[in-house]
Amino acid sequence: DAHKLLVLAGDGIGPEVMREVARIVHWMSAHRGLKLEITEELVGAASLAVHGVPIRDEVIELARQSDAVLFGSVGDPAWSHVSFDKRPEVAILKLRKELELFANLRPAKLFDALIDASALKPEVVRGLDLMIVRETVGGIYFGEPRGIETLPDGSRRGINTEVYTTSEIERVARVAFDLARKRDNRVCSVEKCNVMESGLLWKEVVIDIHKREYPDVQLSHMLADNCAMQLVRDPNQFDVIVTGNLFGDILSDLASMLTGSLGMLPSATLGPVRADGKRNALYEPIHGSAPDIAGKGIANPLAQILSFAMLLRYSLNRGEDADLIETAVSNVLASGLRTADIMSPGMARVGTEMMGQAVLRE
Amino acid sequence: DAHKLLVLAGDGIGPEVMREVARIVHWMSAHRGLKLEITEELVGAASLAVHGVPIRDEVIELARQSDAVLFGSVGDPAWSHVSFDKRPEVAILKLRKELELFANLRPAKLFDALIDASALKPEVVRGLDLMIVRETVGGIYFGEPRGIETLPDGSRRGINTEVYTTSEIERVARVAFDLARKRDNRVCSVEKCNVMESGLLWKEVVIDIHKREYPDVQLSHMLADNCAMQLVRDPNQFDVIVTGNLFGDILSDLASMLTGSLGMLPSATLGPVRADGKRNALYEPIHGSAPDIAGKGIANPLAQILSFAMLLRYSLNRGEDADLIETAVSNVLASGLRTADIMSPGMARVGTEMMGQAVLRE
Ligand SMILES: CC(C)[C@H](C(=O)O)[C@@H](O)C(=O)O
Ligand SMILES: CC(C)[C@H](C(=O)O)[C@@H](O)C(=O)O
Repeated sequence: DAHKLLVLAGDGIGPEVMREVARIVHWMSAHRGLKLEITEELVGAASLAVHGVPIRDEVIELARQSDAVLFGSVGDPAWSHVSFDKRPEVAILKLRKELELFANLRPAKLFDALIDASALKPEVVRGLDLMIVRETVGGIYFGEPRGIETLPDGSRRGINTEVYTTSEIERVARVAFDLARKRDNRVCSVEKCNVMESGLLWKEVVIDIHKREYPDVQLSHMLADNCAMQLVRDPNQFDVIVTGNLFGDILSDLASMLTGSLGMLPSATLGPVRADGKRNALYEPIHGSAPDIAGKGIANPLAQILSFAMLLRYSLNRGEDADLIETAVSNVLASGLRTADIMSPGMARVGTEMMGQAVLRE
Repeated sequence: DAHKLLVLAGDGIGPEVMREVARIVHWMSAHRGLKLEITEELVGAASLAVHGVPIRDEVIELARQSDAVLFGSVGDPAWSHVSFDKRPEVAILKLRKELELFANLRPAKLFDALIDASALKPEVVRGLDLMIVRETVGGIYFGEPRGIETLPDGSRRGINTEVYTTSEIERVARVAFDLARKRDNRVCSVEKCNVMESGLLWKEVVIDIHKREYPDVQLSHMLADNCAMQLVRDPNQFDVIVTGNLFGDILSDLASMLTGSLGMLPSATLGPVRADGKRNALYEPIHGSAPDIAGKGIANPLAQILSFAMLLRYSLNRGEDADLIETAVSNVLASGLRTADIMSPGMARVGTEMMGQAVLRE
């Protein structure tokens, strides 16, 4: 009765931060009775180099049959010129789409010990703890028609289509409302309904599901441009934000940068509840593959480690093990260790491996 | 030989901040020999209330024949439920489209006296002076097909289409490169080419025009999600940013909020050079119609006043008059007067009208 875990480290800093998770897995197997059946596979540029594709169908099948997927990062720009189908990014896009992982939960939480690493004033960012629920299998990321066509005069047209259906909006809204009930009970729905009909439908469907199923939750609406401003002006006004794929991509990166600790933030992406009562789920850091620092041993492994903690809590129902990891991370930060991305005066600068080992020691 | 000026105050705080510009116009007519033939028309909710449409065709025709348009703001949410065609926002969207105002220049400039009003730490935001060039007649704002359709099972689908053509990208890129040459000679082009083909075409065309016409300008590329993060982390890394309609909407609002002085920032939107050597141009504050504070007499009129200064400089070739206004605004700020939006401890809080009169006195 071991849990099936698929580990996809990806490219860039993915493999080096994943190595630090591996240490923790070994320790937990030895000391906490954690039984995992782990499969590791290549995705992104690593898979392109060996198999010529960003992700193989077998790997998607393996992901489907796993209890959870722990993902690193993909995006090596060396491959981005080859062809649109061979982008490393296709790996994560396909995983989301094929496993129907439609709700990406992205917390932007300030670690008190890291308040100095934020570009925002302490009084603006103090206590920040918001959650962005981003739709991840619809919108302009997947809509058809799409492509680049050459016109008779030799010039070209690039086309993408944003599509949202009632049911796609409903199911991600439910995830947001359910989450809000366990938090501060407030949801802000973000679209651009003054310009886009897909945003208008988004807003109408959210209002409707709120009235029918979640009248106890406080609901507000905001335009995407205004939301970007409000996140900078006063991020603490938000509890849960729910939004589409493209706005969610931008706003969640923005929100996590506000905390000054992008290298610290995990995320979970959930699919629908399956026949066996479980749901497919993928856990990954919010940060990307950071090709500029890959291989230098200086990347922050904490987001990857905390992604594993989230996986333990939500997919394997091992909350105590997750607590252990999260407390260890807190203690390491309190002891003054910092990787370069969260460095501030008076702290001790360490690399990826030392940070990982410090967590393990705790 | 008076210059033809069309004034469209719009709804929300538009009319009240425009009133402060009127004072300055009168003064300049009396003391600086400024000859303007001014027509005022209703747009947005103000036009909807009287004419039942957000903008009449006659008004668009007037705009076309003017030397410049001074625009206030539109967006009263009271009308947004009536129907998608009757949004107040249609006024500005139609003006941009019909006059082919394709290049929206949005400066994000820190006023030193206002550094305390920023949510960012002074060391992060000090000296900020970047310019976003946003494409405004293409992209997902105008692409077809669009709309909401009802499916056989009663559920609905919202659709919008992002389209960019070679020539649309080229002309806005040229505006950005030309501007960069007069500034710090650096352009950062922003898209989402790892997910969208329209973004891939955008990047290719920008690279191409750079190679052919602007090899002397330093060009870089950034994904939209990363750009949102970088604007918070270290906004001073940017000189000119060029991007599409939707990303430009979000990123320019974000960038202007960084300065803490949204109520201070003007913008210009330019059309192609016409047969008579002039170009159609519209000037408007970056802030919106702020319906929550409309009619209270507390809105900051400086963005509208500075938009008029930009108009004098760029469309009427009256740089000295523009200097006069800009210096007056600086002096008023230095004297400690502040509207609520830019208030900080120790300063003197004033309303819209007192701020306008203070500028006039200077
Ligand atoms: C890698 C890329 C395709 C992806 C996205 O745009 O969704 C990333 O930016 C993210 O946010 O997970
Ligand atoms: C009013 C609205 C249609 C407009 C836009 O989205 O372009 C506004 O937000 C802007 O940025 O000028």
